[in-house]
Amino acid sequence: MKTYKIALLAGDGIGPEVMKQAVKVLKAVEARNPEVAFELNEALFGAVAYFETGKSFPAETIAICDEADAILKGTIGLNHEDSKKIPVDEQPERGALLPLRRRYNTYANFRPVYLPQELAHFSPLKPEVIGDGIDLMIIRELVGGLYFGEKEVGKDDNGKRYVREVLEYDEDQIRAILKVGFETAQRRKKVLHNIHKSNVLKSSVLWNEILEEVAVDYPDVEVKHILVDAAATYLCLNPGQFDVMVMENMFGDILSDQGGGILGSLGLMPSACVGPEKSYYEPSHGSAPDIAGKNIANPYSMIGSVALMLEMSFGMEQEAKNLWHAMKSVFANGYGTPDLAKGEDAKLIDTDAFGDMVVEEL
Amino acid sequence: MKTYKIALLAGDGIGPEVMKQAVKVLKAVEARNPEVAFELNEALFGAVAYFETGKSFPAETIAICDEADAILKGTIGLNHEDSKKIPVDEQPERGALLPLRRRYNTYANFRPVYLPQELAHFSPLKPEVIGDGIDLMIIRELVGGLYFGEKEVGKDDNGKRYVREVLEYDEDQIRAILKVGFETAQRRKKVLHNIHKSNVLKSSVLWNEILEEVAVDYPDVEVKHILVDAAATYLCLNPGQFDVMVMENMFGDILSDQGGGILGSLGLMPSACVGPEKSYYEPSHGSAPDIAGKNIANPYSMIGSVALMLEMSFGMEQEAKNLWHAMKSVFANGYGTPDLAKGEDAKLIDTDAFGDMVVEEL
Ligand SMILES: CC(C)[C@H](C(=O)O)[C@@H](O)C(=O)O
Ligand SMILES: CC(C)[C@H](C(=O)O)[C@@H](O)C(=O)O
Repeated sequence: MKTYKIALLAGDGIGPEVMKQAVKVLKAVEARNPEVAFELNEALFGAVAYFETGKSFPAETIAICDEADAILKGTIGLNHEDSKKIPVDEQPERGALLPLRRRYNTYANFRPVYLPQELAHFSPLKPEVIGDGIDLMIIRELVGGLYFGEKEVGKDDNGKRYVREVLEYDEDQIRAILKVGFETAQRRKKVLHNIHKSNVLKSSVLWNEILEEVAVDYPDVEVKHILVDAAATYLCLNPGQFDVMVMENMFGDILSDQGGGILGSLGLMPSACVGPEKSYYEPSHGSAPDIAGKNIANPYSMIGSVALMLEMSFGMEQEAKNLWHAMKSVFANGYGTPDLAKGEDAKLIDTDAFGDMVVEEL
Repeated sequence: MKTYKIALLAGDGIGPEVMKQAVKVLKAVEARNPEVAFELNEALFGAVAYFETGKSFPAETIAICDEADAILKGTIGLNHEDSKKIPVDEQPERGALLPLRRRYNTYANFRPVYLPQELAHFSPLKPEVIGDGIDLMIIRELVGGLYFGEKEVGKDDNGKRYVREVLEYDEDQIRAILKVGFETAQRRKKVLHNIHKSNVLKSSVLWNEILEEVAVDYPDVEVKHILVDAAATYLCLNPGQFDVMVMENMFGDILSDQGGGILGSLGLMPSACVGPEKSYYEPSHGSAPDIAGKNIANPYSMIGSVALMLEMSFGMEQEAKNLWHAMKSVFANGYGTPDLAKGEDAKLIDTDAFGDMVVEEL
């Protein structure tokens, strides 16, 4: 009997309602696997934690995460106006999410952009652009770059306000994420798209220098270089040309959300944030305050993150596969949450119903 | 009789062949307007200038630009391998383009993302996503941010390589570009989308602070705040929700190329780079070394940049309109360069033929 401790950080906005579905699914998986037990430990995280404790990543939550074998995170953040109620440095992104990433050094963010052909109608792209479906893997460096560099806000001698913030990387950080890129490419189609901006950024120049060094160890992987701006063009024009894409933090933030765009919804974007010792899993979408509490959010990204956790943290590949399959079946039967179920024949379901159907399919 | 001096910087790759079409068009416009003369002064710029003179923005070119009323630029840059033949700081982007932008302080980059409904078939997006066509204006800050901040490349005490580069803005820079955003919104639909990343970047926090101050002077403009990552999603999912979008330099680089993606080709992206005294005009696309010299590049972005110059630097609105109309007619008659003419009924034409047809339509 193996017990896995999982920290559950439901967070803000639609976080709690999608997390509820994740818990349902985890219980169902547990029921089917008598040799496995999940110990689920809920903890406050994000704006909700700030309002209750004065900290958006409180000590008690840190303790629960430290103890956990893996962390499952919902969504955090308030809308533009409400976020002004929290001091800038305790806002959930700066006060909770970035510290979480840093604490466990979850440098490798895997963001699958995946839409099998049966679900291609979800995409805003034309069928002839999609072809056999969309299947690419964005690998984003998650603990460096502009996100974690020094920031300075001030006034110059004339009282003029200015801001300076640093994009920084060292060779170890770059090498670590590039290795993940090469290894992932090796397991897939042996092509790695290197996304950079070396014609302007010196960080990209160093990045590409390290890439040439790392590449020597992966002679079977073909590297294709593409500027980040061109990548943004071609993700729309011809996503099929990409398989594994590796890039620094901010580029990954933007391009992976563009990935959600070409799939048809950020609701289709689970993700894994992998560290050397501990990993956490989260939907790539935000907390969607405008639809929170309405039970209409799409829990696919959240449940998909459970699947990634089962596979990557607990080695339960078969259960992960079952879960993907179950979610696909719900969609293939024509059901969908409002972000996806559009048009005449759409069979609209809510967040809870989606979770229930996935459990049933399992 | 009014004479306008125009510096022509054809540049690298497909630059010369698209510039040739721009010149044809300028001659045609001149012929129709007896009260106007264009003095066209060619100058070396980019990699071609480097190989000939050792500088990618040589003194002679600077002198010609200084003298000019407006500058028309083609494209610059070599492919990934060839660019290694030039020392990093003389590479055409760092050695020519950025110095050009800085010299004339062309802080306001206008990038129209425009596709009338008749041409909607060019887009990779489904007709129901596009609706009445795509018509938005990206306004990108062009002389600040990561592009022009200090850069430091070095080794730490353990010999580990690192890089640090600074994203910097002061309040004057931010205010100037935001004003352009508000004024453009006032002339259009009175809605301004503010693209930022204030949940992570302190530069966005200052940006948004200045925005609230500037907004007071434009009570008739509604501001909508959207995070840059979400903007990348919605540019694919529902571009019609945007009209004028304003953003800092690097975000503008990426999102405007995504704009080219949703249009169907970067060949549909002209742009204006406006400074307080002098402006320059350029296609948003790159030098496409792979197709250079083949006479197959789409000169629309280049000719569209001429139209922007006629309107914005010379006040020739009617001629600009005629030019847009002429280009639209060529496409509407079913003709297209290979980036656009796809499918059975496509009538394929080359770069020269496109230029000739535009002149004929005029
Ligand atoms: C919430 C925000 C800080 C975060 C990021 O920018 O990394 C999010 O957009 C993401 O992509 O995970
Ligand atoms: C060539 C490059 C330096 C340039 C930029 O990044 O600004 C280009 O991509 C653009 O968008 O004009």
